[in-house]
Amino acid sequence: MDTQVVRNYLTSLQSSITTRIANLDGGSFLSDHWHKPPGEPLQGSGITQILENGAVFERAGCGFSHVTGPKLPPSATHDRPELAGAPFEAMGVSLVFHPRNPYAPTVHMNVRMLSAKAADGQTVAWFGGGMDLTPYYGFEEDAVHFHQTCKDALTPHGAHLYPRFKAWCDDYFCLKHRNEQRGIGGVFFDDFSEFGSEKSFDVLKSVGDAFLSAYMPIVERRKDTPYGERERTHQLYRRGRYVEFNLVWDRGTHFGLQSGGRTESILLSMPPLVSWSYQHQAQAGTPEHDLMKNFIVKRDWV
Amino acid sequence: MDTQVVRNYLTSLQSSITTRIANLDGGSFLSDHWHKPPGEPLQGSGITQILENGAVFERAGCGFSHVTGPKLPPSATHDRPELAGAPFEAMGVSLVFHPRNPYAPTVHMNVRMLSAKAADGQTVAWFGGGMDLTPYYGFEEDAVHFHQTCKDALTPHGAHLYPRFKAWCDDYFCLKHRNEQRGIGGVFFDDFSEFGSEKSFDVLKSVGDAFLSAYMPIVERRKDTPYGERERTHQLYRRGRYVEFNLVWDRGTHFGLQSGGRTESILLSMPPLVSWSYQHQAQAGTPEHDLMKNFIVKRDWV
Repeated sequence: MDTQVVRNYLTSLQSSITTRIANLDGGSFLSDHWHKPPGEPLQGSGITQILENGAVFERAGCGFSHVTGPKLPPSATHDRPELAGAPFEAMGVSLVFHPRNPYAPTVHMNVRMLSAKAADGQTVAWFGGGMDLTPYYGFEEDAVHFHQTCKDALTPHGAHLYPRFKAWCDDYFCLKHRNEQRGIGGVFFDDFSEFGSEKSFDVLKSVGDAFLSAYMPIVERRKDTPYGERERTHQLYRRGRYVEFNLVWDRGTHFGLQSGGRTESILLSMPPLVSWSYQHQAQAGTPEHDLMKNFIVKRDWV
Repeated sequence: MDTQVVRNYLTSLQSSITTRIANLDGGSFLSDHWHKPPGEPLQGSGITQILENGAVFERAGCGFSHVTGPKLPPSATHDRPELAGAPFEAMGVSLVFHPRNPYAPTVHMNVRMLSAKAADGQTVAWFGGGMDLTPYYGFEEDAVHFHQTCKDALTPHGAHLYPRFKAWCDDYFCLKHRNEQRGIGGVFFDDFSEFGSEKSFDVLKSVGDAFLSAYMPIVERRKDTPYGERERTHQLYRRGRYVEFNLVWDRGTHFGLQSGGRTESILLSMPPLVSWSYQHQAQAGTPEHDLMKNFIVKRDWV
């Protein structure tokens, strides 16, 4: 497998997504090209793009990174003993968009590849990623649309993929310390190579390509909904849950910070403004309570 | 060692601290008495006290907890093989106070005991804790006073304790992913029993008893300093660092959340309102830059 093809796909995906988001917002992304300093165990570079304080997006971060290392870590070769200690390459695009309007949901997407050269000279690649939605107010229409788009993207590769990746997403994006889901889910997969490198990459592309169709109609529909102090307060407290998940449970974030990743790129996912208060709870019968009871739960949407 | 004595000390410490803080604030603490549900591996109860939205304190949490378990975890018996698998008791007071005024620093204190009954029927106890200060603006006078109070509290037990616990604090309260200290430090110690249970408890008491003298004069001096948008913005971004430390690096918090601790009591430490922005940096020559350069560093204050 030619990993340059994957790189081209990922950088063009980043660019097409941030272009559409900037158009919707009216603002523009700052683009930060970074390189790992020489001498570090991992070498590589990336493009961190961020739009802050926009009209529609209070904080929208989208990063591409591409690193190489001399030796695959043991965690990556458990199921691939023939690749133990092989040189490897990792690349991906990761994004989190936090809209300003509490009626518009936060979204996360990630598409990534890990590859290594086997002893026979062949490059083997495997893939991971997905997308998931975190609304502050529940709209069935939005949840169904998001999940239907994910399902439609995956079904051409096999009808079993969407249910499997949907369940995987529910399991992964769970705040175990609160027994609470992060949002309404979506799809998530990891360590995926079962169709072979080329066809597994096709699955990844289908996820990446579906992102704008999954998210844009929702944010366009909600971004101008009138709101006040009450909705803003609720949004800030729910964003606290987002922070808790990312810093405590998300393997990419937690491991990245602990192992010397680029902090400001990893923390693109942090919301711009967040609050905590003791035992904040929504009253029964309110839309905030409806969100918790009927949306932020494991539920079949399509 | 009679652990009831420790319990009495800790509950009365909690009460005297929250009484003084409430007096200063003019508001009052909510007191939440909780019990672990029957059937869980750890049994016990606690008192969570919290003052939110006060005149001086935007969020001030102080918790007491006391749990017992059937079997010491291996992590606690590494240096005490004779206690492997013994029934144990753990109790402590932990507090974090976040003032509203950006010129007044956030403070953290923790005093805790772990004890187990050896085969000879003797109860053995060991202790941990400390206090540390996190200012948003640097004042030498405050830093010196805080450290001097810590030093004066420990010196009667041995002149070597303060330098050792001060260095331990600097090492512990470090955001390794940013190579940045959390604040100006203070003192920190863990797993301390080298004077025997009784005399080690005396060290703990000296730390707990010194808390109000260390912190109150500082918050009294700074709480009414005029400030505006600029100071508030700086405070909210620095609070983001506090969150990062607690959720990513603090062993008590991270382990507590991952192992089924009481979430709302553990997260008493979270600031009430927090912000993140990309590569937020203070400009050279400003007081915000002075904080980072001259205060939030490992430095000898007394």
